Amino acid sequence: MRGPEVHPPPRLSRVSNSDTQSTPEALAALPLRENLRGLSPYGAPQLEVPVTLNTNENTHPVPDEVVEAIAASVAEAAVTLNRYPDREFTELRKRLSEYLGHGLSETQLWAANGSNEILQQLLQAFGGPGRTVMGFPPTYSMYPLLAAGTDTGYLAGVRGENFSLSAASAARQVAEHRPNVVLLCSPNNPTGTALGLDVVEAVYEAAEAHQGMVVVDEAYAEFALAGTESALSLLTGRPRLVVTRTMSKAFALAGARLGYLAAAPEVTDALRLVRLPYHLSAVAQATANAALQHYDVLLETVEDIKRQRDRIVEGLRALGLDPAVSDSNFVFFGGLGDAHAVWQGLLDRGVLVRDVGIAHHLRVTAGTEAETTAFLDALREVMTGA
Amino acid sequence: MRGPEVHPPPRLSRVSNSDTQSTPEALAALPLRENLRGLSPYGAPQLEVPVTLNTNENTHPVPDEVVEAIAASVAEAAVTLNRYPDREFTELRKRLSEYLGHGLSETQLWAANGSNEILQQLLQAFGGPGRTVMGFPPTYSMYPLLAAGTDTGYLAGVRGENFSLSAASAARQVAEHRPNVVLLCSPNNPTGTALGLDVVEAVYEAAEAHQGMVVVDEAYAEFALAGTESALSLLTGRPRLVVTRTMSKAFALAGARLGYLAAAPEVTDALRLVRLPYHLSAVAQATANAALQHYDVLLETVEDIKRQRDRIVEGLRALGLDPAVSDSNFVFFGGLGDAHAVWQGLLDRGVLVRDVGIAHHLRVTAGTEAETTAFLDALREVMTGA
Repeated sequence: MRGPEVHPPPRLSRVSNSDTQSTPEALAALPLRENLRGLSPYGAPQLEVPVTLNTNENTHPVPDEVVEAIAASVAEAAVTLNRYPDREFTELRKRLSEYLGHGLSETQLWAANGSNEILQQLLQAFGGPGRTVMGFPPTYSMYPLLAAGTDTGYLAGVRGENFSLSAASAARQVAEHRPNVVLLCSPNNPTGTALGLDVVEAVYEAAEAHQGMVVVDEAYAEFALAGTESALSLLTGRPRLVVTRTMSKAFALAGARLGYLAAAPEVTDALRLVRLPYHLSAVAQATANAALQHYDVLLETVEDIKRQRDRIVEGLRALGLDPAVSDSNFVFFGGLGDAHAVWQGLLDRGVLVRDVGIAHHLRVTAGTEAETTAFLDALREVMTGA
Repeated sequence: MRGPEVHPPPRLSRVSNSDTQSTPEALAALPLRENLRGLSPYGAPQLEVPVTLNTNENTHPVPDEVVEAIAASVAEAAVTLNRYPDREFTELRKRLSEYLGHGLSETQLWAANGSNEILQQLLQAFGGPGRTVMGFPPTYSMYPLLAAGTDTGYLAGVRGENFSLSAASAARQVAEHRPNVVLLCSPNNPTGTALGLDVVEAVYEAAEAHQGMVVVDEAYAEFALAGTESALSLLTGRPRLVVTRTMSKAFALAGARLGYLAAAPEVTDALRLVRLPYHLSAVAQATANAALQHYDVLLETVEDIKRQRDRIVEGLRALGLDPAVSDSNFVFFGGLGDAHAVWQGLLDRGVLVRDVGIAHHLRVTAGTEAETTAFLDALREVMTGA
C-alpha cells in the first residue's frame, strides 16, 4: 500500500519569518546544534486579517460568565503569587478527571503548558537518543519537530487512499518498525477524520510485543461526529496507552495553553521525572480551574461549530471540491488546481486559511456563522474568478 | 586546587516522594529511558509548616495594588483567550528591556515559563547529545537535571576554599574541558555569593577559543550587596554571553513562573528554533506585564529582605556559626555538627529550611521580620539544646 504524495514532514520552516530579530549571518555565527543550522523559526504567519481561520482556534469569544470566573479565580491566586504553585496541581487534576468521566481518578491525570509540552514530556520520558517515535503523515506538523527537539528518531508511517489508516496497515507498520512511541492523531490534523477504536486496539497490540507506548492525540475529540468513541474507554488494562487532550479547542482557551492527558498512574509518575519543577503556574491552574467549573457554558459553542463545519462540507461539495470527513472543528479539502493561489485569493479577500503543504489541498477552521459565510463567499469568488 | 567535599550533583532524588501516584513496580514496568530508571521525582518537600524558608521565595505577600493590577490585566486578556497568544510576547519583551536598562532593546529579550525553561531552551539550542555543559558545584541543583533532560553531558567544575571561584581557576577549567555551555550562577545558589565580573570576563575569553556559550544565572541579582555589578553590563560585543533573570524572587512572583534573559538578538533567534509554539500563555503575559508596570512597588520588599538577611548573618555569627557572604535573599551557613539533626530540630519548631546535601551546612531564606526572628529563636534553641 502506498500513501498519496505528500510533502516531507515540515520540520522547521526554511522561509523567512518576521519573528526573527537578527540576521542569518549573526545566527549562523552562534554555536548552534547541527540539526538547527540554516533553519528559521516554525509557526503560522501572525497576520492581521478580518477572518482568521488558519490555526483551528475556537473563534467564538469566551462567554462573559467565564471571563468573570477566570478573573475572580486569578485575583484570588494573585495574593499568594510570591509562593511557588502547587507542584502537583491537585485541584486541577481532580477537575479534569471529573470532566473526562470514564471512571478516571485524578491519579491518572497530568497537565502542562499546552499539549505540545505534554507530548514533549512524553518523548523526554519514553523517547530520546537511540529511540524512535512513529507518526502517520499527513498529521500534526509538530510531531517531527518535537521528535527533533528531544533527539528522538521520527518514523513517517504511510496512509492509504484518501489519507485513511486501517487497523491492519497501522499494526503491520508498528510491528515492522518497532517504534518506542506511536503517535495516533484522532481526529487527525490536518485531515480532520477520527480513527476507529479498532485502529488504536490493533496498534496497541502490535506495540505490546516490544513494550512500546501508544499515544492517542485527541485534541479535537469534542467535535467528533455522533458515534465516534474516545480512546479513553480503552485505558483500563492498557498501562502503555496515553490519551492527550487540550483546553485550546472545544474550551475556547488557546490563549491559556493548557494541555492534559489521561493514562495509568505510573505514566504520570514517569512524567514527574522529566517535568520542570513547578512547570504549571498558579495563574494557569487558577484559569483552568475556573474554566472547568463552567465547562457546560464553554462547550455550548461546540454544537454551533459543528453546524458551521457541516455547512463548510456542504458548501465545498457544492463547489465541486472534495472535503474529508471531519470529526473536528476544521475541514480539509482537495480538488483544487493551484492550492496556494486559492490560499492567496482568499487572503486577498480578508480570509486566512491554512496551506498545509499538501498539493491541491487546503485546511479551513469552522468559525462563527458570519466567518463561515465569509469564507464560503470568498471561496466561491476565487473559484469562479469573480 | 581541590574543592571542598561535596555530595554528587543531586540529579533526581532517590528518596520516596509523596508526589508519586503508583508503585515502583508499575513504574519500572514502563519502557522508561535508561537514565530515568529507579529514580523518584525531584523536588523540595511540600510540607505544611508555619515558617517556610526552604525554597528562597519572597515571603512578603504581593501588595494589594499589584494584585488588583494583575486581576484587571488578566480579566482583559481572558476575553480573547479563545485565540492563541502573541507568540512573540512583544509587549512583555519591551517592558522587560525597560526594566533592565543597560541600553537593552526588546530584540535582546526572551522569556519562558520560569528560568528553568529558559535554561532548558538554551541547552536544547546549544547543548544536546555529544555536547557538554559545565557548572561549578555546589550550585543550582537543577543544572545537572536540565543537562540530563536535554542529553547534554554535565561537567562538574571545582571551586576553591569556602566555595569560592576565582577568574584564573574558572578560566583554566573552561579552557581545559572546552564545554559548549558554561553556567555561572551569580549570586550562586546555595552559597549566596556573587561572582566578580572579572570571573565572567575571564570565562568568556576562555570559552571564546572554542566558541562556547557563557550563561550567567542572575536569579537573585536584585538582592546583591552594594557595589556588585550585573553581567548585563558585559553584553555589548559578546554575542555568546547570556544573562538570565526571573520574576520569582525580587518580584515576589514565584507562582507566576516567569523567567527571562538578555543576550544578543541572534541568541533569541536561536531559541525561536527550539521553543514550543505559543509557549508563553496570554495569561502569563498579562500577569507579567501588569507586574512590570508596578515594579517599583514590588521591589520595595527587596530592601527589607536584605535587612533580614543581614540580621541572619549577624545572628549566625553570634551563635558561632559560619555564614557565607550573601548577595541573595538567603544565607548558606556552615559550622554545624550534624546538619540534618539541626534541620529536623528546626522543623520540630515549625521552621522549614533547606538541607542542600552539603555536610555541616544548611541554607535558609530571609523571610519577613517575624519569620526571621522565628528562625533565629528556633536555631538558638536547637543549638543550645533548650
